[in-house]
Amino acid sequence: MAGKIAPSMMCADFRRLEQTIEAFELAGVEYLHIDIMDGRFVPNFTLGPDFVRTLREMTSIPIDLHLMVERPEDHLHLFPIQPGDIVSVHQEASVHLQRTLQQIRALGARPSVALNPATPIYTIDDILDDLDVVLVMTVNPGFAGQKLVPATLRKIANMKRHLAEMGYGGVEIEVDGNISYENAVKMQAAGADIFVAGTSSIFKKDADLLDMTERFRASITSIA
Amino acid sequence: MAGKIAPSMMCADFRRLEQTIEAFELAGVEYLHIDIMDGRFVPNFTLGPDFVRTLREMTSIPIDLHLMVERPEDHLHLFPIQPGDIVSVHQEASVHLQRTLQQIRALGARPSVALNPATPIYTIDDILDDLDVVLVMTVNPGFAGQKLVPATLRKIANMKRHLAEMGYGGVEIEVDGNISYENAVKMQAAGADIFVAGTSSIFKKDADLLDMTERFRASITSIA
Amino acid sequence: MAGKIAPSMMCADFRRLEQTIEAFELAGVEYLHIDIMDGRFVPNFTLGPDFVRTLREMTSIPIDLHLMVERPEDHLHLFPIQPGDIVSVHQEASVHLQRTLQQIRALGARPSVALNPATPIYTIDDILDDLDVVLVMTVNPGFAGQKLVPATLRKIANMKRHLAEMGYGGVEIEVDGNISYENAVKMQAAGADIFVAGTSSIFKKDADLLDMTERFRASITSIA
Amino acid sequence: MAGKIAPSMMCADFRRLEQTIEAFELAGVEYLHIDIMDGRFVPNFTLGPDFVRTLREMTSIPIDLHLMVERPEDHLHLFPIQPGDIVSVHQEASVHLQRTLQQIRALGARPSVALNPATPIYTIDDILDDLDVVLVMTVNPGFAGQKLVPATLRKIANMKRHLAEMGYGGVEIEVDGNISYENAVKMQAAGADIFVAGTSSIFKKDADLLDMTERFRASITSIA
Amino acid sequence: MAGKIAPSMMCADFRRLEQTIEAFELAGVEYLHIDIMDGRFVPNFTLGPDFVRTLREMTSIPIDLHLMVERPEDHLHLFPIQPGDIVSVHQEASVHLQRTLQQIRALGARPSVALNPATPIYTIDDILDDLDVVLVMTVNPGFAGQKLVPATLRKIANMKRHLAEMGYGGVEIEVDGNISYENAVKMQAAGADIFVAGTSSIFKKDADLLDMTERFRASITSIA
Amino acid sequence: MAGKIAPSMMCADFRRLEQTIEAFELAGVEYLHIDIMDGRFVPNFTLGPDFVRTLREMTSIPIDLHLMVERPEDHLHLFPIQPGDIVSVHQEASVHLQRTLQQIRALGARPSVALNPATPIYTIDDILDDLDVVLVMTVNPGFAGQKLVPATLRKIANMKRHLAEMGYGGVEIEVDGNISYENAVKMQAAGADIFVAGTSSIFKKDADLLDMTERFRASITSIA
Repeated sequence: MAGKIAPSMMCADFRRLEQTIEAFELAGVEYLHIDIMDGRFVPNFTLGPDFVRTLREMTSIPIDLHLMVERPEDHLHLFPIQPGDIVSVHQEASVHLQRTLQQIRALGARPSVALNPATPIYTIDDILDDLDVVLVMTVNPGFAGQKLVPATLRKIANMKRHLAEMGYGGVEIEVDGNISYENAVKMQAAGADIFVAGTSSIFKKDADLLDMTERFRASITSIA
Repeated sequence: MAGKIAPSMMCADFRRLEQTIEAFELAGVEYLHIDIMDGRFVPNFTLGPDFVRTLREMTSIPIDLHLMVERPEDHLHLFPIQPGDIVSVHQEASVHLQRTLQQIRALGARPSVALNPATPIYTIDDILDDLDVVLVMTVNPGFAGQKLVPATLRKIANMKRHLAEMGYGGVEIEVDGNISYENAVKMQAAGADIFVAGTSSIFKKDADLLDMTERFRASITSIA
Repeated sequence: MAGKIAPSMMCADFRRLEQTIEAFELAGVEYLHIDIMDGRFVPNFTLGPDFVRTLREMTSIPIDLHLMVERPEDHLHLFPIQPGDIVSVHQEASVHLQRTLQQIRALGARPSVALNPATPIYTIDDILDDLDVVLVMTVNPGFAGQKLVPATLRKIANMKRHLAEMGYGGVEIEVDGNISYENAVKMQAAGADIFVAGTSSIFKKDADLLDMTERFRASITSIA
Repeated sequence: MAGKIAPSMMCADFRRLEQTIEAFELAGVEYLHIDIMDGRFVPNFTLGPDFVRTLREMTSIPIDLHLMVERPEDHLHLFPIQPGDIVSVHQEASVHLQRTLQQIRALGARPSVALNPATPIYTIDDILDDLDVVLVMTVNPGFAGQKLVPATLRKIANMKRHLAEMGYGGVEIEVDGNISYENAVKMQAAGADIFVAGTSSIFKKDADLLDMTERFRASITSIA
Repeated sequence: MAGKIAPSMMCADFRRLEQTIEAFELAGVEYLHIDIMDGRFVPNFTLGPDFVRTLREMTSIPIDLHLMVERPEDHLHLFPIQPGDIVSVHQEASVHLQRTLQQIRALGARPSVALNPATPIYTIDDILDDLDVVLVMTVNPGFAGQKLVPATLRKIANMKRHLAEMGYGGVEIEVDGNISYENAVKMQAAGADIFVAGTSSIFKKDADLLDMTERFRASITSIA
Repeated sequence: MAGKIAPSMMCADFRRLEQTIEAFELAGVEYLHIDIMDGRFVPNFTLGPDFVRTLREMTSIPIDLHLMVERPEDHLHLFPIQPGDIVSVHQEASVHLQRTLQQIRALGARPSVALNPATPIYTIDDILDDLDVVLVMTVNPGFAGQKLVPATLRKIANMKRHLAEMGYGGVEIEVDGNISYENAVKMQAAGADIFVAGTSSIFKKDADLLDMTERFRASITSIA
């Protein structure tokens, strides 16, 4: 079993964007994770559509766009979404979730719903047809460098089982938040498929990004 | 088994309102469905209390008022609600749902909660005492002419079973969104009781409204 | 000097829409005034884009669209705006007023800004290039049948003088709210050019709409 | 079995605050319940941090702070929270519930989530690790003197059983709203541990506060 | 010339409310100033309608109600407003200011508009007919104990002159924020009529409230 | 007379951030302009505090932080503001502007208020003490590449004169939006002091950034 890696671009060193992308291409990461924040759904700001466009020009690695914004349906049109990308919108951020997921699907991208740590897994029962991915937040969104919410490990396992029981075993589980090498292994055991890699693993000051990414790859591939 | 018809007045030809109401009286429709939109809970605008008052003067057919608005509790007082009317507020639009349903009951009307396609059926478990009707949206609210969200057919059946299991088999299920003749038959089989009839069925350019409404009646009565 | 008439369609009898439009065509009214409310900028609901489309099919009288809604820039696209129409957005409802007015102009329509009774005339000093019309509310918006705010008469005169002094004497002044025959005369004397006619003048139960409209025409034409 | 008492300070006679606190100290009440309202999450206003500070100076009885406000995470810092206090935030008021509960725990206080009558008990399944208390509203919050929502009695029992089944039988259940002597007995039978005592029981005009509180104590201690 | 005193009740010692009111009756203060905060228009919470009702039962001194809340028009009905009271709503908090002031007048109370330090005096030009009082904030609202914004002294003088020039010299100017004995004298010289007295003057720990209030009275009466 | 240059970092090529900063250091630009967007005050997203921190590590050129966000007072703490930086908040985005400007001053930075094209210059009359800079938007904020709003040229001149007349001639005028070489010359003639240079001037595909910046410098220094 092999997990997929989605490095969190908000953790990247912007002074070396070209080397960063080069390392990720060499390491064969599956996605580039980009957090968009509105200062209201989450209390921070990060990146925007221009940054997505810049990455597009640099690489063909698909984008994993994580919209940490209220009313994502109002903002979807801003982003250059392409077939093969993942686009995650939060369950807590919209009352028209099915419409938004439908729109993402219509763009050829892989629709995903993100759940905050406090949000129960049942909340997505009626949109399972519309999902390729579920993004289980393992910290409260908004900042890099937070500590794992312990109960989310069990939540990943519950989600895995629930998806299977509902007949949607093919929906991938993505995890985001304090994904250290050790946590990644536990999360993979619990059922995680896609791993957002940030400052807890690959982005370490003075460490080689390619080395770290390959080490991360190893840690989520070693399981039989 | 006979379903009830609630023609969607936002689909009516306003140039022939009197003939429209006449046809609905002849056809014996059970309700006149009126959508109120605030441009925020849903991205559109339609009708208002003045239009409800106009209908009141024209007919004694009960109103089926569908408040697609944020904080419906702030707006209830605007409408001339009467005993026998249905008033639907959205589960996603208010954090004081029980209070609002109580107020509707106190006016003598039939309280109803509306669920968007993405909203799970469990969300109403604690207000079952307060409901006469559940409105299962079969498209995302806001516009006429949308295509059925397929998973909502199963949702109607789940809702029917869940209500029965909880001991609330008497709560009626209303459906709204792309209710064609064919979809109505499937929805009735799944458990729907009240059908909002719009441009997918009775409101067709150049077709006779009474004929179409009677045809709709036939399609939801033919089931043994 | 001859004023222009914009009957307020929210006051019309919806049972006789065809006769109503016929009367307005015979009377040669310059605009059909349509109020859009969102239950939040104003505490009421009225009509929507479907109603505008219906009127379009019935007549070529230009529409005078009054958006009593928050963030009108988010809703403009819903309406079938045409060259020659007036579109009013509220000064108090948007922080990007110039952009919205620009968009209205780009659609070929006549941009207008509406001012609540409490809003000073200076607030529009930096958008005068972008205006064809200023809509001076003479009651607080949201309901028909309210009494004139007396200070608004003086406000019309101040606006007239201010526009002239700023070199924008060509911007027309529209007035809306309790425009009785008597008030219309005073408002015209103060500088009003376009009159929203509602229940205070032409829409009277049992009175002939064409007669009343012609009487209104006479009252705002009699001034030398 | 002995319940805990949390007198609702918004019901207290502010003219006799010192005598009130004295009575509560004599009666050995476990908490002083303080409602904070923002006029938006609930349609009323009551008290603020200054009042909490005043109580702190008067007594060492722990505070039971009930934040009936939107986005409680933005307001937590205003209050002089201490170890041993209960702090309740509403499930419906925040999308970052786990983070807020974590912050309350970090202050040494007992984190609690409050549920409106319409809010299902499953909504807290993923924050059970973060809770010491669940506050089951037995009326819709915002006003003193309301009538019990009957379904909430069953909800207390469901909550009790659900907590036990999930392995969180140690989480205390607090109840708030129309807690008369009679209702308190039924609620305790259903599983309630902490009782907010207001105008339905101890705060009666012309009755002795200490007597009434002792009577309340008796009523929730008499059960074997 | 004699100024009027409105002690800020949020600064009062709630343990001695009866003695406090007694002192204010002896000192003959003209109003009791009560701040209502919603945690959103200002980042704090204080008191509510119940507290106003308590004061009503204790004294006939008129209330000076300062609504530091968004959309005050939605909350006015909560308060037991009486003829002779002042009710202040913020210019920045409502887009229907004239309607709200009209409603206050209709209740027999004295309508007032409050201006934050950053809000220009011209913003009230079109509601002068509707005002008995203008409340010039001399600190940013939300907290007791702040330092005077120096520019507000000049603003009081500008307001005084502007009101006179517009023909509204009879509108009283109230000031609120860091009204020490020294500042009060300067503000009175600039044109202030009503003084909100808080922790900068009369509410001092261990000082006699009646003495302090009489000293305040003296300081704003000594001017010829 | 020599203008100051503030390159708009949202227009920079993120693949060459180090070369970009190097060029700006060689060219001696006075500020690095950084736009923060919340998707609500303006309909877009761009950068965040992490990006500001990155720039800090790369250069000692002061930051010119432009907060295009609602309620900037809630977000100020996120940014590593330093003495010598400019921080602009929008007049339209906060009702507690004076408090926010005071906080910026307290951090040692230069407080600035930004005005949308529609916002009159008088709106800042009561915060002149609190300003080092006024940012006159010459397009509606939110996107690069827009066309100049013609009336804003006159607005710069009006602002210059108004500041002088009020005795605040030392407040600098910054301009932002479509600042081409030609427009910069006209704006400087009208009174502009600081120029946000974006895609209309220095950021041109395939052009040398240092050359372009020096050309920009020349264009705003050539005036006697």
